[in-house]
Amino acid sequence: MTPNCSYDQLFQFTRSIFKAIGCPDADAETATRSLLSADLRGIDSHGVARLSGYVRLWEIERINARPNIHIEHETPSTAVVNGDRGLGLVVAPHAMQIAIEKAKQVGTGWVAVKNSNHFGIAGHHAMMALEQDMIGIALTNASALVAPTFSKDRMLGTNPIAVAVPAGKEDPFVADFATTTAANGKLELLQRKNEQTPSGWVQTKEGHASNNANELKEGGALLPLGGDREHGSHKGYALGAIVDILSGVLSGANFGPWVPPFPAYVPMPEQMPGEGIGHFFGAMRIDAFRTAESFKADMDKWIQSFKSAQTVEGQPRVIIPGEPEREMEAERRKNGIPLFDAVMNDLLELGKRFDVPFT
Amino acid sequence: MTPNCSYDQLFQFTRSIFKAIGCPDADAETATRSLLSADLRGIDSHGVARLSGYVRLWEIERINARPNIHIEHETPSTAVVNGDRGLGLVVAPHAMQIAIEKAKQVGTGWVAVKNSNHFGIAGHHAMMALEQDMIGIALTNASALVAPTFSKDRMLGTNPIAVAVPAGKEDPFVADFATTTAANGKLELLQRKNEQTPSGWVQTKEGHASNNANELKEGGALLPLGGDREHGSHKGYALGAIVDILSGVLSGANFGPWVPPFPAYVPMPEQMPGEGIGHFFGAMRIDAFRTAESFKADMDKWIQSFKSAQTVEGQPRVIIPGEPEREMEAERRKNGIPLFDAVMNDLLELGKRFDVPFT
Repeated sequence: MTPNCSYDQLFQFTRSIFKAIGCPDADAETATRSLLSADLRGIDSHGVARLSGYVRLWEIERINARPNIHIEHETPSTAVVNGDRGLGLVVAPHAMQIAIEKAKQVGTGWVAVKNSNHFGIAGHHAMMALEQDMIGIALTNASALVAPTFSKDRMLGTNPIAVAVPAGKEDPFVADFATTTAANGKLELLQRKNEQTPSGWVQTKEGHASNNANELKEGGALLPLGGDREHGSHKGYALGAIVDILSGVLSGANFGPWVPPFPAYVPMPEQMPGEGIGHFFGAMRIDAFRTAESFKADMDKWIQSFKSAQTVEGQPRVIIPGEPEREMEAERRKNGIPLFDAVMNDLLELGKRFDVPFT
Repeated sequence: MTPNCSYDQLFQFTRSIFKAIGCPDADAETATRSLLSADLRGIDSHGVARLSGYVRLWEIERINARPNIHIEHETPSTAVVNGDRGLGLVVAPHAMQIAIEKAKQVGTGWVAVKNSNHFGIAGHHAMMALEQDMIGIALTNASALVAPTFSKDRMLGTNPIAVAVPAGKEDPFVADFATTTAANGKLELLQRKNEQTPSGWVQTKEGHASNNANELKEGGALLPLGGDREHGSHKGYALGAIVDILSGVLSGANFGPWVPPFPAYVPMPEQMPGEGIGHFFGAMRIDAFRTAESFKADMDKWIQSFKSAQTVEGQPRVIIPGEPEREMEAERRKNGIPLFDAVMNDLLELGKRFDVPFT
């Protein structure tokens, strides 16, 4: 591991790289904030480690650094946004803001996005709603790595769901999770440590049970949350499907096995039915249902009751969704962000190429 | 098993019972349709087997047969509905209809419901959206049987999620599932057969792994989808929590460990923070996003691609959510609905008591 970088250091550098590929200043700032929210919250697979990946997508013109992000169709509570091949890191906050504005007008706002790219972590966008006293929702589809129950084909992405809910004295509730048993980032960690996966995470290319953390490289697949039918994988499959339909089909983006891959070297699927990657955002004004004050008092009660639930022996606490990520963020803002050497080298390479010093 | 009953036979009888406890004619019809949709779709635990349970709740005045179901607060896209202690079987379609009307006006409609009771199967209500070319969503909380990850306390209900999506030539996509590894009805089946549960379904009252299908009667708990932390139970816990917050906290109903139990003999929780059980409904007009025609063509493509995915050896097909229930419904409309003797005896008892012949 390289010595920790400070958030500000990473921010300056990343913003300069986004500017260097042609992003307008405001977009470079937005993209950086989106990307580094993953590093702050401890989702290292989705943060600055991917910066060079975004640059490679820009090189092959799958990412447009100066997109004309625009509404294609709308009603008072809905919109379809065309991301114009922009960075998902920029398109997503733009679309979430539209959802928030609609919620201000008519109580809720729902925005389906097409023609976008990878948007970083879903939770970051959902959390934009919190400061408005709204519930925020963010979904995205992703390239197919997941086999539906009973199948050996990769048909769905890890298709995450994020829901952010404001509270009063307590910190907000922020759930943000892939609809698979384990996210791809968890596999990468095991690969680095040369360890096996628990049961129910992956299967072989023939669809047999496996504990091989490298199974995806050999044509295998991730498994939907639940793992197998007996343990409810048909529910994880249904969840991934719902995310795909709302993000991909409802927007006019690609869906199912046709969602474009993140690595620039992976060939694009043939006969793609839509445009780019799809996202789906929602914002619900609390006071469109009941007063924010009474809701927040009840959310505090909800959170306190779960925090004070009795734990199983040996477990220190019952966790509220979002707590570990918030604690990680506090720690990393203070002590800096650890980077693997490979990631640091990647950043130094980028810096050299675009003449951006890493200081 | 008793010889199969026809749907019409069960419908006449059930409607008469609801009328006998004082439901207005239209409500008795609505309640019967809601309740028996479970029997038709093969969710036997939620159908006519529960009729006597609803009657017992009416006896102790937890169910109001002539409720004044009304909107307490609304915006163009939202409402909070007070179910006035009505049958959830009636309150839910009423609230879903409000969501649909709002979607007609402003693109989407979102209705949180408080002061309701058990609403049968979530899928039935979500499916009301289909004939309007809308996506339908139905959620409900329920009395606490599920332990959050790391806890030994029951803090959440089986809190189901239903999402219904129209297609074109293909049948609609209808997902409807509890946010636990296995629904309570599955446990009851194993109890009848005196069999053990697979791993990850239940835990003991101390929070240890168990395969005892009777564990709930001994103070144990159902487990969130995923089973344990290593297999993603924190995601199932988050899903159950989201359903609870939208259904219970957003509406002003009870939530978490305070949701009232279905069996009339189980005492009510103390110091309840809200009113009754909570539900949450959503309706999204397809053409608030893109033309229904283009959406449905893509949904057909989605469904066909999943249907034609390669199966694991020994598995006949990849299932589209809603397919097995639709096939069951076709079969049972034709050949009738099987009832356990205990259920049949229960119905005959009810018939005697309310002077309703079972013919």
